[in-house]
Amino acid sequence: MEQENVAVVVHSAGVLKLETVPVPEPGPHEVLLQMHSVGICGSDVHYWQHGRIGDFVLTKPMILGHEASGRVLKTGSAVEHLKPGDRVAIEPGVPREIDEFCKNGRYNLSPSIFFCATPPDNGNLCRYYVHNANFCYKLPDCVTFEEGALIEPLSVGIHACRRAGVTLGSRVFICGAGPIGLVCLLIAKAMGAAQVVICDLSAERLQKAKEMGADFIIQVAGERPQVLADRVKGLLGCMPEISIECTGVESCIQTGIYATRSGGVLVLVGLGPEMVKVPIVNAAVREVDIRGIFRYCNTWPMAISMLASKKVNVKPLVTHRFPLEKALEAFETTKRGLGVKVMIRCNVTDEEP
Amino acid sequence: MEQENVAVVVHSAGVLKLETVPVPEPGPHEVLLQMHSVGICGSDVHYWQHGRIGDFVLTKPMILGHEASGRVLKTGSAVEHLKPGDRVAIEPGVPREIDEFCKNGRYNLSPSIFFCATPPDNGNLCRYYVHNANFCYKLPDCVTFEEGALIEPLSVGIHACRRAGVTLGSRVFICGAGPIGLVCLLIAKAMGAAQVVICDLSAERLQKAKEMGADFIIQVAGERPQVLADRVKGLLGCMPEISIECTGVESCIQTGIYATRSGGVLVLVGLGPEMVKVPIVNAAVREVDIRGIFRYCNTWPMAISMLASKKVNVKPLVTHRFPLEKALEAFETTKRGLGVKVMIRCNVTDEEP
Amino acid sequence: MEQENVAVVVHSAGVLKLETVPVPEPGPHEVLLQMHSVGICGSDVHYWQHGRIGDFVLTKPMILGHEASGRVLKTGSAVEHLKPGDRVAIEPGVPREIDEFCKNGRYNLSPSIFFCATPPDNGNLCRYYVHNANFCYKLPDCVTFEEGALIEPLSVGIHACRRAGVTLGSRVFICGAGPIGLVCLLIAKAMGAAQVVICDLSAERLQKAKEMGADFIIQVAGERPQVLADRVKGLLGCMPEISIECTGVESCIQTGIYATRSGGVLVLVGLGPEMVKVPIVNAAVREVDIRGIFRYCNTWPMAISMLASKKVNVKPLVTHRFPLEKALEAFETTKRGLGVKVMIRCNVTDEEP
Amino acid sequence: MEQENVAVVVHSAGVLKLETVPVPEPGPHEVLLQMHSVGICGSDVHYWQHGRIGDFVLTKPMILGHEASGRVLKTGSAVEHLKPGDRVAIEPGVPREIDEFCKNGRYNLSPSIFFCATPPDNGNLCRYYVHNANFCYKLPDCVTFEEGALIEPLSVGIHACRRAGVTLGSRVFICGAGPIGLVCLLIAKAMGAAQVVICDLSAERLQKAKEMGADFIIQVAGERPQVLADRVKGLLGCMPEISIECTGVESCIQTGIYATRSGGVLVLVGLGPEMVKVPIVNAAVREVDIRGIFRYCNTWPMAISMLASKKVNVKPLVTHRFPLEKALEAFETTKRGLGVKVMIRCNVTDEEP
Repeated sequence: MEQENVAVVVHSAGVLKLETVPVPEPGPHEVLLQMHSVGICGSDVHYWQHGRIGDFVLTKPMILGHEASGRVLKTGSAVEHLKPGDRVAIEPGVPREIDEFCKNGRYNLSPSIFFCATPPDNGNLCRYYVHNANFCYKLPDCVTFEEGALIEPLSVGIHACRRAGVTLGSRVFICGAGPIGLVCLLIAKAMGAAQVVICDLSAERLQKAKEMGADFIIQVAGERPQVLADRVKGLLGCMPEISIECTGVESCIQTGIYATRSGGVLVLVGLGPEMVKVPIVNAAVREVDIRGIFRYCNTWPMAISMLASKKVNVKPLVTHRFPLEKALEAFETTKRGLGVKVMIRCNVTDEEP
Repeated sequence: MEQENVAVVVHSAGVLKLETVPVPEPGPHEVLLQMHSVGICGSDVHYWQHGRIGDFVLTKPMILGHEASGRVLKTGSAVEHLKPGDRVAIEPGVPREIDEFCKNGRYNLSPSIFFCATPPDNGNLCRYYVHNANFCYKLPDCVTFEEGALIEPLSVGIHACRRAGVTLGSRVFICGAGPIGLVCLLIAKAMGAAQVVICDLSAERLQKAKEMGADFIIQVAGERPQVLADRVKGLLGCMPEISIECTGVESCIQTGIYATRSGGVLVLVGLGPEMVKVPIVNAAVREVDIRGIFRYCNTWPMAISMLASKKVNVKPLVTHRFPLEKALEAFETTKRGLGVKVMIRCNVTDEEP
Repeated sequence: MEQENVAVVVHSAGVLKLETVPVPEPGPHEVLLQMHSVGICGSDVHYWQHGRIGDFVLTKPMILGHEASGRVLKTGSAVEHLKPGDRVAIEPGVPREIDEFCKNGRYNLSPSIFFCATPPDNGNLCRYYVHNANFCYKLPDCVTFEEGALIEPLSVGIHACRRAGVTLGSRVFICGAGPIGLVCLLIAKAMGAAQVVICDLSAERLQKAKEMGADFIIQVAGERPQVLADRVKGLLGCMPEISIECTGVESCIQTGIYATRSGGVLVLVGLGPEMVKVPIVNAAVREVDIRGIFRYCNTWPMAISMLASKKVNVKPLVTHRFPLEKALEAFETTKRGLGVKVMIRCNVTDEEP
Repeated sequence: MEQENVAVVVHSAGVLKLETVPVPEPGPHEVLLQMHSVGICGSDVHYWQHGRIGDFVLTKPMILGHEASGRVLKTGSAVEHLKPGDRVAIEPGVPREIDEFCKNGRYNLSPSIFFCATPPDNGNLCRYYVHNANFCYKLPDCVTFEEGALIEPLSVGIHACRRAGVTLGSRVFICGAGPIGLVCLLIAKAMGAAQVVICDLSAERLQKAKEMGADFIIQVAGERPQVLADRVKGLLGCMPEISIECTGVESCIQTGIYATRSGGVLVLVGLGPEMVKVPIVNAAVREVDIRGIFRYCNTWPMAISMLASKKVNVKPLVTHRFPLEKALEAFETTKRGLGVKVMIRCNVTDEEP
C-alpha cells in the first residue's frame, strides 16, 4: 500500500480517535478496497456518544462507518465478478451463514449477520478495508463514489417504501424530515407516489424537503395526533394509503395510525422508546397494517439502476464534506445536527467524485 | 306465510324482546328467506347489555342475529342463481355501493356497508328475512343448516389466518380459547399449520381446544409477557411464525409480539381498550408485522368448499340449542358464558339439521 | 337537451353511420353525461371493419366508443358523490352483479360485466350518455377532458405493469410501439423502471417512443427470437426482469420468453392467433411467469392521481383531433394507421380542453 | 470408516456401475454423512439411459442420487447446529455463491448452484458423502430416514402448490398420477384444497391416487383438451382455480389452460418438448397465469414440520426397497415403471427405518 491504513475508531463512550491499523488481506471470496467516500450516520455518532445502541454494546475498539464506496485494489482467489480498479458500493450487512432467513430472501433478519460498525464488527471508515465480494456492487461510470456511498441511507428508504407497498398514484405521509425522511421522500416519488406530505418541527428541514420534491409540508408544533392526521387529510384531499414514521416519537406513531386510510400501511422506521402507547383498536378494525423495518435487503442493485438512470437525485443530501484526516471535525458537525449528510473523503487523490 | 314473523329485538340497553314484525318483500336482487339456524354472537349480547359497541349506537329497536342460514322462499325478479327451496348460508355484510374498497376486493372496509345487527341495520334472528341474493350462498346437501350458520364465526378465523399467511408447516400461537380462538385453531390446521399452541385462563376451554386439535395448551396465570412467550417457544421448539391474538387484553398483545419469530405476523382479532402499550421497537426491528382484521371478506365460498369436503369439523362448537321461542333463555345462557356456541333454531318444522 | 343526441353507430361489418338517437334518462345510481372527448381505439375500428372481435359479435346496431370523458348533466336519485357540472372520466366496464370476481377485486373478469362498445352494450361516442355513477371519476381542475379520455388506454398500461410487478429499478422490454406499447412505456417509467427497451418494425413509431422516454429502441427486421432477445440483453447490460408483449405475434411472444430474466415475468397484452407455438420449457425451468391481461380494474383513481401530479405526460399520445360531426373521417384516419391516438370532440362548445 | 465407500456411478449413456470411491473429508462448513435412504428419481434413470438431460451432459463419471437422508458422522470446524449421530434430510441444491437469486430467496434459480447428480456434481447414492451443513436438516425422532429421503420429491409438490397459490377451499386439477402428481396431490390437500381431480392414462396409477386422497379421478383416453377440461368442470361442479401439469405433454398443457378458472393459475411441473402449441389467447384474456417451477427452494423446514405433525403421509409412495448392493436391480425396476417410488437402503445396519 502506498499509505498507512488510517481509521476512525471509537474506544468507548466519548472516546473517538484517528488511528493507524493494519492493512487487511482479502480471503478467497473477498476484496481489498481503497475506501473513497463514507457518510456519517446517526448510529456512528450514537456509538461515539453512548458506547452502545440497545443491546449492541462496545466491548472493544471498533472502526466506525457503514455508508461507503471504494475502489477494488485486490481480489480474493474465488472472486470472478470484480477486478482491481473497479469502483464499488458496499452493502455493509453480510450474512455469515445461509440460515433460514437468508434462504428466504430476508437476510437482514439473520441473527448472525456481519454488519459494519455494529459491535463487534468493524466498519469501513478507513483507508483500506476488506469486504465480501458478493456484497460489493460495481458502479457504472455515470454513478459517482459519493452517490455510491449514499446507497446505504437510500436503501433504508427503498426497504421502507417497498414494505409500505408504495406504487403508482400512492398518497404518502412521512413523519420526520431528517436524512431518512428525505430518502423515503425521494424513493416514494421514484416509485410512483402521486403526492407526499411531510412533517417536522424544523422549518429548515421542511424547506429542504420541499426542494427535494415534497408536495406538502407541515410544520408541527405540538398538535394532538388526531388533529395532525386531519391536517394531512385536508392537504391531500383524502387519507394517505401509506404513512412512514421516521422519528420514533410516541405521538408521531399515534398520528401515523390515525392518518392512514383503512386498508393501508404504517411503516415504522424511526426508533424511540421500547414501549409506546398506540391506538391499536383504531389500527386493527381499519386493517391498517403496522410494519417495521430492520435495515434492508436486496436494495443495492435497484439503487444503482436508479442512480444510473438519473431517476433519483441524491446529491442534495450531502451538505458537508471532510477529508479523512478531519474526521473528528466531521463527527462534531454531525453531532451538532448541522445540514443533512456529512461525507468523508478517505482518498482525496482519486480524481473521481 | 304460514306463520307470523317472530323476531328477537333489542330496544335499548337491557331490553330484549320477542316480537312480531312484518314479513318483508324481496327487491329485484333480493331473496326472502325462511330462517333456519342463527348463532348468538358476543356482539349480540353486548348490544343487549350495553346498547352500543364503540361508535355503533342503538337509536331505535333492532333485530339481532348475523350468524345465519335459511331456506329461500321467494326470489326477486333479477335473481338467477337461486330458486325457492334452496338452502343458503347468509353473509351478513353487503356493500351498499361499489366504492373504492369494494372494487379492490376489500368490501368489508366499505364505510357504507350494510351489516346485519349493527345499528341501524336489522339482523336475521327471526322467521322471515330478506337479503341480497349475491350474499346468500347455496349449501350443498352434505352441509347442514347449522354448519351454514357457523360459517360466520368460521369466516373470522379464515380472514385472520389468511391475513396471517398461515401455510404449510406454520407454527401458530393463539391467545384465547373462546369461540374465535377455536375457529382460528380449526382453520389454521386446515390451512396446513404443523403445530398450534393455544393459551387461556380457563382449563375447560383449553380442554375443548385440545379436543379440537390444539397440539399444545398453556393455562395462563398472570405470567409476564416475555415469560409466556418463552413457554410458547419451549413447547414448539422454535418461535412461531404467526401469533393470533383473540382476547384484546394488553398483556396478551405484548405477549403476541414477544412470541412471534422475526419476519412473522401478529394478527389482532380480539378487541380491548382503545389505547394499549406495546413493545413497538421489538416488533419493528424484528419485522414482526401487526395486522388487525375487520370482520371478513371473500370467505363464504371457501368455507362451504371446506365443509362440503369435510376438511373442517365445526360441529363440536355448538354446545347449546334453543328454539326461537326460547331465544331469551338462549341469550341468558350466552351471557353466563356457558359452553361455546349457542344456536337458535328459527324453524323447527324443517326436517333438515 | 339543447342539442340532438348524435351518435357514431356501427350496423354491421363495414357499415358505420352518424345517427340521431334518443337522450337516455339516468336511473337512481346513474348520471347523464354530456360527452366531451372520446378516443378511437383499435377495437372500434375492428368492429366497424369486421362486425366482431372473437366471440363478441354484432347482432344489432351498436354505438362505438369507450375511451371517454364528459360533464355531468343530471344525477340519479341515489348519487351522492357527483353533481351537475362535474367533469368526469368514464370507466367503461361496470359489473352487472357482485359476483365472485367482483368480490375478489378482479371485476374485469366478471363474465356478465357491462362494457361500452362491446356487443351488445352501447359505447359513448355520442353527445348524451348515461353511465353508472360509481364508474365516473371526478377530474380535478388540472386534468383536462382529453387526459380524462386517455385514462382508458393508460389503464391498459397500468394493469399490464402492475401484473408485471414493475418496481423501482426494473429493466423492462416492451415489444411493439403502438399506442399500447407507448402507454406501457409511460407507466413503467412512472412506476420506477430504470430502463426500458422498446422494439417495433416502424422507425417512426420508435422515434415517438424515444421522445416519450424509451431508453433504447430496436428496429426489428425479421431477426430470430433468440437473436432479438440477445440484442435486448446487450443494450441493457443484463436480461430484463420484465417483458411486455403488445403485438400478439407468435415470434414476439417467443422473444418475450427468451428475453426475460429467470424469475421474471412476461405479460401478454397484444392478442394474435388463438394458438401459438412457445418455448414453454424455457419459460418453465427459468420460472419466467406468463401472465395475460383482460382490460383492467382499479386503475382510474391512480391514473387521476398521477395525471394531477404531472407524473405522466399523456399529451403526446394525441396526434389527431376531430369534432363529432367528422367522426367518419376520424375513423378513416385511424384505419389508415396514421399517428398514435385520434381524439373526437363531442362537445366543441365546452371551453375546457 | 468401517466400510468401503460404495457408490452408484453412471459413466455414460447405458453404463451404470457399483464402484468403490474415496471417503471424502468435510470442509469447515460441511458434514460427513453415512447415507441411509436414497430414492431413485426419473432423472437418475434418464442420465443412465441417455447420458444427459437437456443441456446437462455427462462428461465424466458421476455418482447418482439426490433424494436422500443419512446420519452425521463428522462435522466441519464451523458447524454448530449439527453433531455426530444426528439424523438429517439432505437438500441437494446448495448455492455456490450468494448471488442475486440467492439474496432474493430464490436460490434454486442461481445459475452456479451445486446440485447432487446433475453434471458435473456428484450425487449421494453411496455410503459416505459430504454436504454443506446448512443444507442438512435435522430429523426429529418421529420422522424416519425414509420419510427424510422423500422430502425431495415432496419438495417438488410443495414448490408447485406454493407457486400455484393453493389455499383453503381450492379446487385443484392435477394432470398425471406419477410420483410427482401424487406428491402434488398430498401437498394440495395438506394446504387446504377442498377437492382434487387427477387424471392419467393408467388405471393403476389412478387407483393409487384415489387411495392417497384424490376426490375424483379421470382415466383419459385421447379426449380433446376442451372435452377433458369440461369433464374436470363437471366433476367439480365448477372450474378449478388451479391446475398442475405433471406430464409435459402438449395436449395436457392445453387442457390445463382450458380447464383453469379465469383468474387462476396453471403450474407446469412436467417437462416435455421444448416447443409446444398453446391456446395463449384463451389463457391471456382470462388472466390464467402460467408458471413453471425449477426444482424448489425453502421447502425442507416446512416438509419436516409437516411430517413430524403427521399432516402428510408419504409412506404409501414407497413401493420397492433394495439394499445398496442391489442398486442396479433397483434401477432396472424403476426403468420398467413398476410401482411408484423405489428406495435404496445404503446402510442396512442402522436399525432406524
